[in-house]
Amino acid sequence: MRIVIDGFGGDNAPDEVIRGAVAASREYNVEVIITGDEKVLESRVKALQSETGVGNLSIVNADGVIQVEDNPLEIRKSKKNSSMGVAFDLVKTEKADAIVSAGSTAALMVGGSMVIGRIKGIKRPALSPIMPSINGKYILADGGANLECRPEVLLQFGIMGSIYINKVMGVEKPRVGLLNIGTEEEKGRELEQQAYALFKSTSQMPNAKLNFVGNVEAREVPLGGCDVIVTDGFTGNIYLKTVEGMGGFMKSTLKQLFGKNALTKAGYLFAKSGVADFTKKTDYRETGGSPLLGTAKPVIKAHGSSDAKAFKNAIRQAKEFVESNAIKEIERQLV
Amino acid sequence: MRIVIDGFGGDNAPDEVIRGAVAASREYNVEVIITGDEKVLESRVKALQSETGVGNLSIVNADGVIQVEDNPLEIRKSKKNSSMGVAFDLVKTEKADAIVSAGSTAALMVGGSMVIGRIKGIKRPALSPIMPSINGKYILADGGANLECRPEVLLQFGIMGSIYINKVMGVEKPRVGLLNIGTEEEKGRELEQQAYALFKSTSQMPNAKLNFVGNVEAREVPLGGCDVIVTDGFTGNIYLKTVEGMGGFMKSTLKQLFGKNALTKAGYLFAKSGVADFTKKTDYRETGGSPLLGTAKPVIKAHGSSDAKAFKNAIRQAKEFVESNAIKEIERQLV
Repeated sequence: MRIVIDGFGGDNAPDEVIRGAVAASREYNVEVIITGDEKVLESRVKALQSETGVGNLSIVNADGVIQVEDNPLEIRKSKKNSSMGVAFDLVKTEKADAIVSAGSTAALMVGGSMVIGRIKGIKRPALSPIMPSINGKYILADGGANLECRPEVLLQFGIMGSIYINKVMGVEKPRVGLLNIGTEEEKGRELEQQAYALFKSTSQMPNAKLNFVGNVEAREVPLGGCDVIVTDGFTGNIYLKTVEGMGGFMKSTLKQLFGKNALTKAGYLFAKSGVADFTKKTDYRETGGSPLLGTAKPVIKAHGSSDAKAFKNAIRQAKEFVESNAIKEIERQLV
Repeated sequence: MRIVIDGFGGDNAPDEVIRGAVAASREYNVEVIITGDEKVLESRVKALQSETGVGNLSIVNADGVIQVEDNPLEIRKSKKNSSMGVAFDLVKTEKADAIVSAGSTAALMVGGSMVIGRIKGIKRPALSPIMPSINGKYILADGGANLECRPEVLLQFGIMGSIYINKVMGVEKPRVGLLNIGTEEEKGRELEQQAYALFKSTSQMPNAKLNFVGNVEAREVPLGGCDVIVTDGFTGNIYLKTVEGMGGFMKSTLKQLFGKNALTKAGYLFAKSGVADFTKKTDYRETGGSPLLGTAKPVIKAHGSSDAKAFKNAIRQAKEFVESNAIKEIERQLV
């Protein structure tokens, strides 16, 4: 299997991309293609080799980088030959099975929708981060790609999220919930009320398997209230970033807690294996990235601040996405 | 000063209401009126007296309770004589200066808007919880009262929140931010884009003092990114409940962290003063309740699960709200 990674996407490119790619190619037995200025990449791969060892890597030349501030539509035009543009092209022409990038989310959305293309029948792809709950993980769809959505779009997000977390992460009969301000059927805006009715009517879709558990309040989600949480991209992005902000709040609070005085500092020495468990659980680098659900080939968005570990896990995730045949299953269920 | 409290609102009424009321009346030197079935209240006040001591309490009889599942409009009709209805009437007829209730939020909204009435010019009152950040507190407007809002309504929320946190909580030049998915001016839905322009144009309101800091991402808010965070009630409620959920996530995680093994358990013994600080910081009972901003008299919504401490603090908050003259200042700035 071949995974292509955008060599110049993210804050720590290209060195951390290379480190992650080498590690992933060995650990997960995949071939990794890195796109970008080949002179720079070749020299960096060589320079890092004494540390990383030799991986199953190849380099494909590209010209420049699409920036966050660029018009994302340029990924098909003036930035067609950028590190991300070339990576998309490799997937489109079947020279790679999946793409990973920590670059511009908007450009990745456009490339996913318009260069690779959507699965037949899918109205909008959903950026779908995998997030930690107290006892496992859940997927959020949409995490920010489509600010405003129609109920039919939310239903597709629910079906796709359910298939992903089932096929890729092995969750049986995923519980799909609609993010809302209360659990009763009539709660929320017109969008939630209509979506609720639509989710309940999936028995009319002969192939769709959906375990809809109703409206779920935001407070229940981090506590394990469902496996797939569905909402529009504006609300989803607010949710996602509130969780991130509270993660920062937690870290800062733990620091204050243990830093208070000599006694609490001693407490840290005893408790640090527990702290390490906590840190690991809430570390996005352990997950990898967010799948873009609804494109005809696997697309993984890595966090902009990804380091080698995060890139390695994003490549692992891309591999698992390919192997899972989740995209075939989406095609099948949506017919 | 006289504060009226709904004797039968919330999960722990009336005993915890009585305990909180007695404590508040002594600690804050206010007269507290409790509404509800006078036979029950009299006997409970007497029964608890050996524990609570005698406070500066009076009881006003009421007939029944408005329930969460009741149509909130009934607060003006069939539930006019309920414990909440009578409490509103006492404020309206100036027999009390402010009302506190842990009962139905929707009924409290209706009573605030329609029995007490809105401040002249205010389109919608905002339920505005006070929330902890890593280095202080901030106010959220709206936390769930108005699911969909026009930009002009958000602007009023910003002005009212700014006045409350300045006059009642002493925050100088409160930083008012618009909750959004990015900081750039053009980010968000049409609502956020229009609201941004409107917030920037407050120089056209001769009396309004507003320190608008622009769009603020959800991740920055718990980290102290602004003092007043403005959004529609749907988004605000999702934000609020995500913070609550992550609070639960944190508690559960701390428990796991310290409970892992004998060593980490020993760590807890050393660190527990730090844990106590953390618990206090994130405990809503320390704050009291959420002011309803925009009504002609102070209305405080206490949490449905309030205990004596939470009720005591909600009464303190009502007292401070009255003393602050925040309502006069809202009238002045909105002209």
